Amino acid sequence: MMGGMENDVRTVAWTGGGLRLLDQTVLPGRVEHVVVDDVDTLVDAIRRLVVRGAPALGVAGAFGVAIAVRQAAREGWDDAERDAAIARVRQARPTAVNLAAGVDRVLPYVAKGADAVAAEAQALLDEDVRGNRAIGAFGADWILARAGDRPLRVLTHCNAGALATAGWGTALGVVRELHARGRVAMVYADETRPLLQGARLTAWELDRAGIPCAVQADGAAPSSILRGLADVAVIGADRIAANGDTANKIGSVGVALACQAAGIPLVVAAPWSTVDLALPDGGGIPIEERPAAEILSWGGARTAPDGVGAHNPAFDVTPARLVTALVTETGVLEVSAGVTPAQRAAENA
Amino acid sequence: MMGGMENDVRTVAWTGGGLRLLDQTVLPGRVEHVVVDDVDTLVDAIRRLVVRGAPALGVAGAFGVAIAVRQAAREGWDDAERDAAIARVRQARPTAVNLAAGVDRVLPYVAKGADAVAAEAQALLDEDVRGNRAIGAFGADWILARAGDRPLRVLTHCNAGALATAGWGTALGVVRELHARGRVAMVYADETRPLLQGARLTAWELDRAGIPCAVQADGAAPSSILRGLADVAVIGADRIAANGDTANKIGSVGVALACQAAGIPLVVAAPWSTVDLALPDGGGIPIEERPAAEILSWGGARTAPDGVGAHNPAFDVTPARLVTALVTETGVLEVSAGVTPAQRAAENA
Repeated sequence: MMGGMENDVRTVAWTGGGLRLLDQTVLPGRVEHVVVDDVDTLVDAIRRLVVRGAPALGVAGAFGVAIAVRQAAREGWDDAERDAAIARVRQARPTAVNLAAGVDRVLPYVAKGADAVAAEAQALLDEDVRGNRAIGAFGADWILARAGDRPLRVLTHCNAGALATAGWGTALGVVRELHARGRVAMVYADETRPLLQGARLTAWELDRAGIPCAVQADGAAPSSILRGLADVAVIGADRIAANGDTANKIGSVGVALACQAAGIPLVVAAPWSTVDLALPDGGGIPIEERPAAEILSWGGARTAPDGVGAHNPAFDVTPARLVTALVTETGVLEVSAGVTPAQRAAENA
Repeated sequence: MMGGMENDVRTVAWTGGGLRLLDQTVLPGRVEHVVVDDVDTLVDAIRRLVVRGAPALGVAGAFGVAIAVRQAAREGWDDAERDAAIARVRQARPTAVNLAAGVDRVLPYVAKGADAVAAEAQALLDEDVRGNRAIGAFGADWILARAGDRPLRVLTHCNAGALATAGWGTALGVVRELHARGRVAMVYADETRPLLQGARLTAWELDRAGIPCAVQADGAAPSSILRGLADVAVIGADRIAANGDTANKIGSVGVALACQAAGIPLVVAAPWSTVDLALPDGGGIPIEERPAAEILSWGGARTAPDGVGAHNPAFDVTPARLVTALVTETGVLEVSAGVTPAQRAAENA
């Protein structure tokens, strides 16, 4: 079943001539793909969240360079035009460090042509899936070592699943692994306004995997935690500073505050590439402000009165003191106990 | 302007033969009223949130008894049938203590006929508006005594405005009073999923009153507070236990946790009738679970996958230790500093 699951949800795949993206804007109502072979369309797809999730954006960014190299050859761009196009892919969304990292990873192959770039992007994709599997195992081990024997109720926010990665999931990778070990009683999936990645995407993934799931309003998450309905919260990350401050989907820090108040662990599951050691703390993480219409309208119809504005930050920053465990493919860091990504990097240097 | 505002938004009005309700389910797109003269329609209107907000429900419940008395005469009910109908009004929603209190207030007038009941309900309505004015003044005094000279950024959740009361507002009554004193720079209005009372109702009220407003996702509230974008949070309440534990719209406790973490005050503004001295603490407050479709669908279209369930509590309970100030028409109780409603009631007994 799990191998099937992994193959089942392919968010990003290279066709040889372009990038095939599972269109996450129309899930769960429709399962449709778009094939992208030019930079403008890719940048638009990234901005519209056709593809989303920090690890998936990294892979899409890497393949995006291959698209730029092919388009440059096709349309006779000079190197400056090609590099400007690559820069636009790199900057299509500002918060996720993985997008820029994915682009940077394949830059050394640009001179060798699109196929060489695509091969390196494919290597990144394969590494992402392997890394997710390791995150799942480390995370499940850590949680179960603290959980006793009972079935677990897990709360998650947004979608850090197969749809946010190349195919298994970070936070949901941990949940999938717990499920494989027979230890998941229920997942509370925050719906995740404004774009409902939880209600649309996480619920879809969990349902396909046969994992019991209840969708709740984001505002219900702190209360569910304080009422004792969850044993652990597991979320992903879009960028992690050297001290462990963690940017993730807006609403995450409310979950984190409630976990602290209730005395349950907040587990952040993310590939090591999400760590940005250049940032000492979360104060330097740029927070993407998204269009007001995402808040003020629904299905094209205005819900708020005309003339009223919106505040629509896509992410928030959870302070390191609230991050009980950071799970990467290299192991677990107990951040709130003082083990920071910077320390771990120094030990491994 | 304020007198105009007060007359402008009449959520509940007695026509002499029935109850005229401003239909809050179609705001802000349409301003429509429904006239109710039978108990079944009133109970349905209360459940569908045509009328909502604890104080408004109290007034609607009181007039609902007049409706039941008129219907009993019209349809030849015996006393048992009439009393059963009154009980259905009283129990139409479980969390707000005001609904039951409004019904109970007018019960002594039932034997005197519908006009006597309606007169007492009208007295309750008039008291509510006067009480809201007092809440606004006490709340503004308390906040400004602590705020220094700068213009204030206020965060609010759900709608505790004119639309939630007989015509001025509790939490928004405080905001209106601060605005009248020239001290409001911005109000952050949480949209308040699932029914968007913040985006639809609070934004509509603030816009009509000329108060600057930005709507945000509920998940953005803790982050806005932690980032220093708000100087104070002001919310309403649906039921307050003797120790100060406060039931309010789902999402409130996340706001409260963030206020504590950021060191800004959480102000609960509510009429004294919201206090239920029979409950020692919030553990005894019944939490209404509303239909799953409110979470899983939008405008009749399913947003989550078929087969997935929802968790849809309408309210949460903020512990007394997080309630900096409880503002009623009788003054301010600094609850987190140890002044509880039970103590205040004992002093006044």
